Amino acid sequence: MKQTASALPDSAAIAPSDYVIIGGTGDLALRKIFPAFFYRYLDGQVTDAFRFVAAARKTGTLDEFIAKLRPFCEDAIASCQDGEAQFAQFMKLVSLTTLDVGTGKGGEDLKAFIDERISDARPVIFYMAISPALFGASCQLLQKVGLVTPSARLVVEKPLGHDAASAKAINDELRAVFDEDSIYRIDHYLGKETVQNLMALRFANTIFESQWNNTSIDHIQITVAESVGLEGRASYYNHYGALRDMIQNHLMQLVCLVAMEPPAQFQANQVRDEKLRVLRALRPVNPEQLSDNLIIGQYGEGHVNGTKAASYETELGEPSKIDTFAALKLYIENWRWAGVPFYIRTGKRMALRASEIVVTFKKRSHDIFANGATSSGDLPNQLVIRLQPQEGLRLQLISKQPGPGGMRLFPSELNLSFDDTFKTRLPDAYERLLMDVARGNQTLFMRHDEVMAAWDFMDPIIAAAAEKAPEIYPAGSFGPAAQEQLFDGTNAGWQAPVIDKE
Amino acid sequence: MKQTASALPDSAAIAPSDYVIIGGTGDLALRKIFPAFFYRYLDGQVTDAFRFVAAARKTGTLDEFIAKLRPFCEDAIASCQDGEAQFAQFMKLVSLTTLDVGTGKGGEDLKAFIDERISDARPVIFYMAISPALFGASCQLLQKVGLVTPSARLVVEKPLGHDAASAKAINDELRAVFDEDSIYRIDHYLGKETVQNLMALRFANTIFESQWNNTSIDHIQITVAESVGLEGRASYYNHYGALRDMIQNHLMQLVCLVAMEPPAQFQANQVRDEKLRVLRALRPVNPEQLSDNLIIGQYGEGHVNGTKAASYETELGEPSKIDTFAALKLYIENWRWAGVPFYIRTGKRMALRASEIVVTFKKRSHDIFANGATSSGDLPNQLVIRLQPQEGLRLQLISKQPGPGGMRLFPSELNLSFDDTFKTRLPDAYERLLMDVARGNQTLFMRHDEVMAAWDFMDPIIAAAAEKAPEIYPAGSFGPAAQEQLFDGTNAGWQAPVIDKE
Repeated sequence: MKQTASALPDSAAIAPSDYVIIGGTGDLALRKIFPAFFYRYLDGQVTDAFRFVAAARKTGTLDEFIAKLRPFCEDAIASCQDGEAQFAQFMKLVSLTTLDVGTGKGGEDLKAFIDERISDARPVIFYMAISPALFGASCQLLQKVGLVTPSARLVVEKPLGHDAASAKAINDELRAVFDEDSIYRIDHYLGKETVQNLMALRFANTIFESQWNNTSIDHIQITVAESVGLEGRASYYNHYGALRDMIQNHLMQLVCLVAMEPPAQFQANQVRDEKLRVLRALRPVNPEQLSDNLIIGQYGEGHVNGTKAASYETELGEPSKIDTFAALKLYIENWRWAGVPFYIRTGKRMALRASEIVVTFKKRSHDIFANGATSSGDLPNQLVIRLQPQEGLRLQLISKQPGPGGMRLFPSELNLSFDDTFKTRLPDAYERLLMDVARGNQTLFMRHDEVMAAWDFMDPIIAAAAEKAPEIYPAGSFGPAAQEQLFDGTNAGWQAPVIDKE
Repeated sequence: MKQTASALPDSAAIAPSDYVIIGGTGDLALRKIFPAFFYRYLDGQVTDAFRFVAAARKTGTLDEFIAKLRPFCEDAIASCQDGEAQFAQFMKLVSLTTLDVGTGKGGEDLKAFIDERISDARPVIFYMAISPALFGASCQLLQKVGLVTPSARLVVEKPLGHDAASAKAINDELRAVFDEDSIYRIDHYLGKETVQNLMALRFANTIFESQWNNTSIDHIQITVAESVGLEGRASYYNHYGALRDMIQNHLMQLVCLVAMEPPAQFQANQVRDEKLRVLRALRPVNPEQLSDNLIIGQYGEGHVNGTKAASYETELGEPSKIDTFAALKLYIENWRWAGVPFYIRTGKRMALRASEIVVTFKKRSHDIFANGATSSGDLPNQLVIRLQPQEGLRLQLISKQPGPGGMRLFPSELNLSFDDTFKTRLPDAYERLLMDVARGNQTLFMRHDEVMAAWDFMDPIIAAAAEKAPEIYPAGSFGPAAQEQLFDGTNAGWQAPVIDKE
C-alpha cells in the first residue's frame, strides 16, 4: 500500500479491469467517478494495470480533460506528499475515445482498444454515465461490436424509469444484452459508510438486534434533508419530484436495510432477497386515506443559511405542482414490524443538509421515579444513525442528573463519531461501489426485482399525489406544517436533525 | 441559590437541622464531613439557620479548628468569587463542645446548647465519627441527657462489626436507643453519582432493563482497585482485610444495585427490600470448592505509578496472612440471574485507582459476517460503568471499519463522561448522604437486615479464607495471577480498568 494520508484498511490491490465510462467527460464522471478512481489509486487498490476509458461524443484532448478533472482531484492530490506525481501517473491510465452511441460511430475503435490488452479474462466494465434514454442504444452498440463478453459488466444509475412500466422497459433493454448477474444498479446511498454500518450495527450487536422489533421499538423516522434547490436540473426534476427522485430509491433502500430480517450470510443475493421481502410486505397506501399517510410540499421563498432563496416556481420560471418535499408514513406487515410506523421524508431547500435515521424505542412501561422525575426524564431511548454530514451514532439515554439530592432524570447521549473514532478519511460512496463492481460483488447494488417492487408500491401513491396541490413551505424550513399530521394519534412528532458542527 | 462555580441542580434549601459530629475534630470530620457541609452551604442548600457542633474530648479553640479545617476547604473556597467571606460566614454556624462519651462529661452542656434553638421539631442529627467501640456508650449518654427525641437521627459508618455476631452486637447497642427509622448507616459508595446513576440507567432506560437478565447477559465484573497501601491504618486493617473491609459492604452493595429487581417505587424501604432479596439469593460458597470461587492475595514489593512500593508485611512491620486483595465468584439464584456469574474483586496497591462495573452481554448467536469478519469483530457488547475516577459510561459496540471494501468489523465505543456532559462539579458522596440525612431520606443508607445478610453470606467465606495463605502479588499489578482461575470453563477473563486521563 502506498504511503498516503488517506490510506484505508482493506485496500489490497484489486485484480485489474478495464473501466469504460460512457459519458466519460460529463459532470458525473468529472465530479465523482474519476476522483473516486484516483483516491483508490492513491491507496494502491487501483494499480497501474487498470485502464480507464472516457468515451464521449466529443472528447477534446487529454490535456483538456486533465485540466477539467484536476479541480475535483485537488483534495486527493493534497492528501499525500507526492500527490502531483501520483496524479500524473494515474492519468497515464486514462484514455479518451470518441463514441456516438446514437450512430454507433467509434464502437469499433473502442473494441480494438479493449482487445489490445493481454488477458481476456479481466473484467471490462461499462459505466453508463449518460441519459437512460441512451441505455438501450449503448447496450446494442456494445453487443454489435463484440464487447459483451462473459467478463463484461454494466453499471447504471438512477433514474431507472419514472414508474414501473418505464423501469421495466429500461430493464428490458439492459437485459436484452446483459445478464442480471452482470448488471450493477447504483444507489449511491448504499455506498455510504453509515448505511453499510447499519448492517454491522444490527447484525453484530446483540443489544440492538434483540430489540429490533415491535416489542421494543415505538417508531422509526428517516429524514433526508437537502439544502440545495434545483441546481440547474429543472427539466429533469420537474418531471420527477421528490417521490420519484428520492423516496422510491434512496429512502426505500434505507427502509429495507433498517427493517430487513437477518440474512443467513452477508452475501449479495441473500441481502437482496431480504430487502425485497420488506418491499413486498409494505402495506399499500389506501388512496382514500392518502392525507393520513402522505404529505407533499413545494418550497416557496425563504432563507437558507442566512441567504435569501427564491421559490421553486421562480427558479423553474413557470408554475408547477411538482413535489420538492414528500413525507410518507409506512407500515411493514410482518411479524417483526406489525404496528410500528416508519415515517420517511425528504425535501429540497430545507434548513440544512442532513440525513439521519432515528429509531425510537418504547417508553418504559412503569416509572419507579414517578415522584421525583422531571418531564425530560420521560423521554424514550433513541438510536440516531447520522448518514451525513458527520457520519456517526448517537444513543440517547436517561441518566441521573448529578446533584446533592433527589433522583432527577436527564437525557444524555452516548456518541460515536466515525471521523473521530477511525481518524481516517471516510471513502466516498462511489469509491466503495466502483471497487465492488471491479470485485464482482453485487451486495450493495439493487437487483431488478427490488427496483420493480419499489415502483409497484410507489406508483399508486405517486398517481394519487399528482391529484393534490403541494403545500408551499418556506425555503430554509423543514417542510410544510401539515407533515405533523402523519403522527396523528401518537405523541411523537418529526425530529429535526441536529448538527454539531459542519 | 448563591452564585458559585459549583452551583448544582436540586440545591433548594433544606429545612434546617442541628448536626452534631461526635468526634468532630478527627480526621473524617475534617477531611470529609465539614468540607461537604461547606460545599452544600455554598450552593445554598445548607442555610444560615443550620447549626453544626463538633464534639470531642479536647476541642481546642475555634480558631485552631478553623486553621485545621481550612486546607480541606480550599477547593470550595476557590470555587466562587466570595469564597473567603462565605467560609467565614459558614464557620459562624459551627460550635465546638467538649464531650467525653466515656465519662459522660459534657453531655449536659450539649443538651443545653441544643435546647437553645427555637423549634423543637427540627432534626438533631448525631454523626458518630468515632470508633464503633464507643457507639454504645455514646447512644446511652445521648439518651441519658435527654437528646434522643423523636426528631433525633443517628449516623454511623463502617466498620459495623467484623462478623455477623459483632455486627448484631453493635446494632443491638444502637437499637437500644434509636429506632431503625432513625438510624442512617453510611456506605459512601451509595452516595457516588455513578452508583446512583446505575439505578437511573437500569430503570429509566428500556434498552438496558429489557436485557438485564440471564438471556442477554453473559457475566458481570466489578473491580474496585486502590493504588494506596496501608496509609497508617495498620492496626485496623490487619484485623479486617479486603473481604471484611471492602467486599462485605461496598462490593456487596454494588452487586445488589446491579442485580436487584425493580422496586415498584424508588423509595427507601422498597429499594432496600430488593437489595435484601439479592443478598438472600446468593448461592452459599461451598468451602470444599473454595478455590474455584475465592482468591485472596497480599501485596509484595513492587512499583506503583513508577515509585517503588514496599510489601504489606514491610509496611506492617510484622508477618501477616491478611488479605489485601480478594476476588470472588458469585451466583444469584433467582429467575433473572441463574447461571450468570458475578466476578467481584478489590485490592490495595493495585496498578491504579479505578472502580468499574462491566456488564458483558452474550455474543451473537449467529454470525452473518463469518466470511469477512476479523477476530476483533467477534467481541461481545459491553456496558462499562465507571465509578472512579472519571465517572461515566462506555458502551462497546461492533461497527463496520470504514474502508473501500468488504465488511470488516471493529470494536468501537460510545462514551458518556459525566464531567463533560454535565459540565459541573460532581458532588462528593458525603455531600449527598449528609443532606439525605437532613432530609430524612434513607434510600441510600443500609438497613440492618442488609448488613446482616451480607455478613451471613460472608462469614463462612471469611472463615475458610483464614485457613488459606494469601498469594503474594507485586504492588502495582492487578492482583495475583490465580484470580484468572475463577473464569475456568469460560473464555472470559478479568478486564483491567481503562483510564483515559486522570
